[in-house]
Amino acid sequence: MSTDARPDDLPPPTAAPRAATTAAPGSGDPLAELRDALRTFAAERDWERFHAPKNLAAALVVEAGELLEPFQWLPDDRSHALPPDVLEAVRMEMADVLLYLVRLADRLDVDLADAARRKMAINATRYPVDRARGRSDKHDRL
Amino acid sequence: MSTDARPDDLPPPTAAPRAATTAAPGSGDPLAELRDALRTFAAERDWERFHAPKNLAAALVVEAGELLEPFQWLPDDRSHALPPDVLEAVRMEMADVLLYLVRLADRLDVDLADAARRKMAINATRYPVDRARGRSDKHDRL
Amino acid sequence: MSTDARPDDLPPPTAAPRAATTAAPGSGDPLAELRDALRTFAAERDWERFHAPKNLAAALVVEAGELLEPFQWLPDDRSHALPPDVLEAVRMEMADVLLYLVRLADRLDVDLADAARRKMAINATRYPVDRARGRSDKHDRL
Amino acid sequence: MSTDARPDDLPPPTAAPRAATTAAPGSGDPLAELRDALRTFAAERDWERFHAPKNLAAALVVEAGELLEPFQWLPDDRSHALPPDVLEAVRMEMADVLLYLVRLADRLDVDLADAARRKMAINATRYPVDRARGRSDKHDRL
Repeated sequence: MSTDARPDDLPPPTAAPRAATTAAPGSGDPLAELRDALRTFAAERDWERFHAPKNLAAALVVEAGELLEPFQWLPDDRSHALPPDVLEAVRMEMADVLLYLVRLADRLDVDLADAARRKMAINATRYPVDRARGRSDKHDRL
Repeated sequence: MSTDARPDDLPPPTAAPRAATTAAPGSGDPLAELRDALRTFAAERDWERFHAPKNLAAALVVEAGELLEPFQWLPDDRSHALPPDVLEAVRMEMADVLLYLVRLADRLDVDLADAARRKMAINATRYPVDRARGRSDKHDRL
Repeated sequence: MSTDARPDDLPPPTAAPRAATTAAPGSGDPLAELRDALRTFAAERDWERFHAPKNLAAALVVEAGELLEPFQWLPDDRSHALPPDVLEAVRMEMADVLLYLVRLADRLDVDLADAARRKMAINATRYPVDRARGRSDKHDRL
Repeated sequence: MSTDARPDDLPPPTAAPRAATTAAPGSGDPLAELRDALRTFAAERDWERFHAPKNLAAALVVEAGELLEPFQWLPDDRSHALPPDVLEAVRMEMADVLLYLVRLADRLDVDLADAARRKMAINATRYPVDRARGRSDKHDRL
């Protein structure tokens, strides 16, 4: 839908001054780098007022839907072979999802990498290799 | 819904041998670290067959919906102050979104950090500070 | 996620008095019947305050995600044959989507059936039989 | 995203011959009318092959995301007052959601109205008036 009000996405590689805790681009942690760039981008545009966690979570699911769209009629086994222009569009949708996720994490003071590591440890417990092997069942059905 | 078939999420911090190109935990790039851990997790469980890009994109939007759920009835301005147990659940949903996104990027051979940087540059062009300041309009309405 | 605040869904077949304009159950128009039942359900619980269009649209996409969940790892061609308990769960998710859609339409004063008929006419123009036959391409690519 | 492959939506008010069980437009049951029109639309275009339940559920959540999009940055209390062009776009997104839902129900042989009535009865039990009044908590937290 083209008639809407959304900053769609967010931030720029910016030359604005960075705080001492900031990860510089190329420092190795892209999540920290994106977080800082998004902060600057929002501050420059006075967009903090729009970036309530609820709104960012809504924007994220909208982008996740857009990411799914080019796959919706494809057979599963053809979903690896996207035409180049579709793949590029998919890359930009994946970028949107990541940007909103990083921005949401910043607004909620969540350490994304730590959360992901902890969730992976939970999954390892829920899906033991011997029972989960070759099965797509949810853990409560294994 | 509890009656479903989904590995829900994916990978563990694993002790499995890693390839030479692998980012070790703590090396500084959490996206590379998570990508490698997810690869191992899926391989150990013979889950590659389920991880078609289409399926991963579907799983991602499902998790994005779950992430939005605790916010859906909250006024925007109360969405910063989640009770501790809800915030922890939100963290785990954010982790799920990130894990599926990283796994999808791996399956499509997409460099997530690069895509996000390129999208940020596009956004900087679409939303010039002087026109976007304080406005939530989409770029084609600025 | 179980830790959230959502009325999840909404209305009951109620014995409350109905307005004269109300479609009685069995009168033939289920959309009108559901609209009226949902109104009563919300009023009895003082839930109008939560039912801002934004919130209902958020709730709807959450339910749509839950509806997709049981399909996410299934091959397309096996998605017709759901186990009975999964199919019943799918029915209830479809019900949730319909209930939120009807409630949202009521709050925005939208005539759902009229909108659907108009959209079908647009689709007939966008997807002429001779060009759309056997193709899943979007109209701007036909 | 504009680069995708989706029939986006589906059916036309058609002059094709209808089966004896068909609800004629205006007969009073818009769900039956839409179901029949969608069947004809898909058959004329040889689209049954694309309309696996999984694909329709994916298409539905994509449309639900598009429906949420115009609301994402709006304060809840301003989401009633959409500009006319945005409201019309919202109507068409609501139509898309309904059309995919009706088509999915047809493919899974689900009686949507019956499912919605049964879910409403469940909700009445889960959210008793005296406990749910004025609260947005999920039933397991009441």
